[in-house]
Amino acid sequence: MGEKATYIQPGNEFDRDMNYIPDRITRDARKPEFGPGDVPLWPVEPGRYRLVAATACPWANRAIIVRNLLGLQDVISLGLAGPTHDARSWTFDLDPGGVDPVLGIERLQQAYLERYPDYPRGITVPAIVEEVSGKVVTNDFPWITHDLFHEWTDFFADDAPDLWPRALRDEMDEVNKRVFTEVNNGVYRCGFAGSQEAYDEAYDRLFAALDWLVERLSRQRYLVGDQLTESDIRLFTTLARFDAVYHGHFKCNRQKLVELPALWAYARDLYQTPGIGETLDFEQIKQHYYIVHTDLNPTQIVPLGPDLSGWDEPHGRESLG
Amino acid sequence: MGEKATYIQPGNEFDRDMNYIPDRITRDARKPEFGPGDVPLWPVEPGRYRLVAATACPWANRAIIVRNLLGLQDVISLGLAGPTHDARSWTFDLDPGGVDPVLGIERLQQAYLERYPDYPRGITVPAIVEEVSGKVVTNDFPWITHDLFHEWTDFFADDAPDLWPRALRDEMDEVNKRVFTEVNNGVYRCGFAGSQEAYDEAYDRLFAALDWLVERLSRQRYLVGDQLTESDIRLFTTLARFDAVYHGHFKCNRQKLVELPALWAYARDLYQTPGIGETLDFEQIKQHYYIVHTDLNPTQIVPLGPDLSGWDEPHGRESLG
Repeated sequence: MGEKATYIQPGNEFDRDMNYIPDRITRDARKPEFGPGDVPLWPVEPGRYRLVAATACPWANRAIIVRNLLGLQDVISLGLAGPTHDARSWTFDLDPGGVDPVLGIERLQQAYLERYPDYPRGITVPAIVEEVSGKVVTNDFPWITHDLFHEWTDFFADDAPDLWPRALRDEMDEVNKRVFTEVNNGVYRCGFAGSQEAYDEAYDRLFAALDWLVERLSRQRYLVGDQLTESDIRLFTTLARFDAVYHGHFKCNRQKLVELPALWAYARDLYQTPGIGETLDFEQIKQHYYIVHTDLNPTQIVPLGPDLSGWDEPHGRESLG
Repeated sequence: MGEKATYIQPGNEFDRDMNYIPDRITRDARKPEFGPGDVPLWPVEPGRYRLVAATACPWANRAIIVRNLLGLQDVISLGLAGPTHDARSWTFDLDPGGVDPVLGIERLQQAYLERYPDYPRGITVPAIVEEVSGKVVTNDFPWITHDLFHEWTDFFADDAPDLWPRALRDEMDEVNKRVFTEVNNGVYRCGFAGSQEAYDEAYDRLFAALDWLVERLSRQRYLVGDQLTESDIRLFTTLARFDAVYHGHFKCNRQKLVELPALWAYARDLYQTPGIGETLDFEQIKQHYYIVHTDLNPTQIVPLGPDLSGWDEPHGRESLG
């Protein structure tokens, strides 16, 4: 996601703005089985949409990974914004001339304004943009990947995993909720705490959740059931950034991930799964957080550490089934 | 030491002001055998001097430890400033009424001004103050501990270690120099770097030195010779603060100390030596750095981590002799 230039509200707990453009893309624009249905619906159509993401951002990383695992790379194109953005927008400064080659824009904000000329909220990734009109269709990240999975099945690769098995749906919902509030958003609650009290509380909540995950993942290879699901992807994108950014920059520093053996081996297992690890660019991740959040790191100096060589070490998780 | 309120000079490498009040305290005010001799000399005398330190500060920590190990607690009194200070001075806010009970002052600056009414430089700890006159005698920290060892021998405890053995002097000088420039001051060079380039260079220098120390301390229990010397104390005061402060706050984050097994066991060995570990107050250490350096941590939020329970774990270094 993109955040405002000032991330901390002194005295306050961090409160994520969860209002997004809620449109959904479904098969023949049918009413979706799960989630919000009274929203504008767009039809699944290969070549019509562009996923705009940023390698740095954990919420966008989720969408990139799911697109990879399902084999939708030739069906939905991918545009990547650079790691740093200003107060207004993510920008396409990694592309030649600083312009997204398909959308022809320099700033993702332009696609938001094409849809809503007075768009009042944050310019976030991931966003799905209609290529021809240049309009943002949706930036409602939890439903973007959900609908990739449930609505684009006709275009999956033959070996696409079942990332959202019907039998596991209830348990996934429960686990996903806890992982979102306590971990994915929990690290931000630590980093953007506006007071010592808010930080202390956020830290305790985060590490209580990590203790729960360590315990759970000491017994089972994957977070829900005995197969890779989207619950794993959701957790992974935060774990992958933990030592590089959240540990120091957000003061999530009871332990590093590498000091929590079960969780660290779990993260390596996912990292080494084809389609996942290669979506990470630790350099861009560090640049994003350390350069953009000037109210946390006014010098904008980007740490050279941590040593990341351990990600390729054997994980030994196969025996957990 | 105390530093100015602005710690970073944009664009520049960190440059420590090494000009101190150079007076020395020697037996009968004799000319010292080593180091600067053309300076005002004061006589060793029990009950005459007060060591003013702060638990937070690594340079002051060195003096506290040496005083403990030599058994000089009843001969030289100890005053402790609080962990945070303002742009002008360390303050005695831990004492009842915020006043040092012996010197009767609120701010260490008063003892500096008593000596030099126009004292122009930083108000640093450790400082030795003459109790009756309330004047600072010296704040030249490398020589403070050196002279405690060589000049106060008549007042040592029976079991005082030989912290500066004559036979090891040359090797200690060499090692101390490298530890000072690359490690003790090296962490500050990372944290107060005024540019990405200055930081990158400082980080490489620091971890090159830590690699050297890991290699050396994998073969021998102590840094120089086969006994505890002041070289160990000098290194220890930085290692003790590494994970709590330097790793995150100063971006010295290739690894944590706990990820460097030989160095971590070495640090625990010293920590568990009577007279050393009890001088540390990790809470005050974290408060000092995270609250005082507002140009690095504008929120002044103090991290709850890291988990420090490992300091009491067995170190297993006895077998190194």
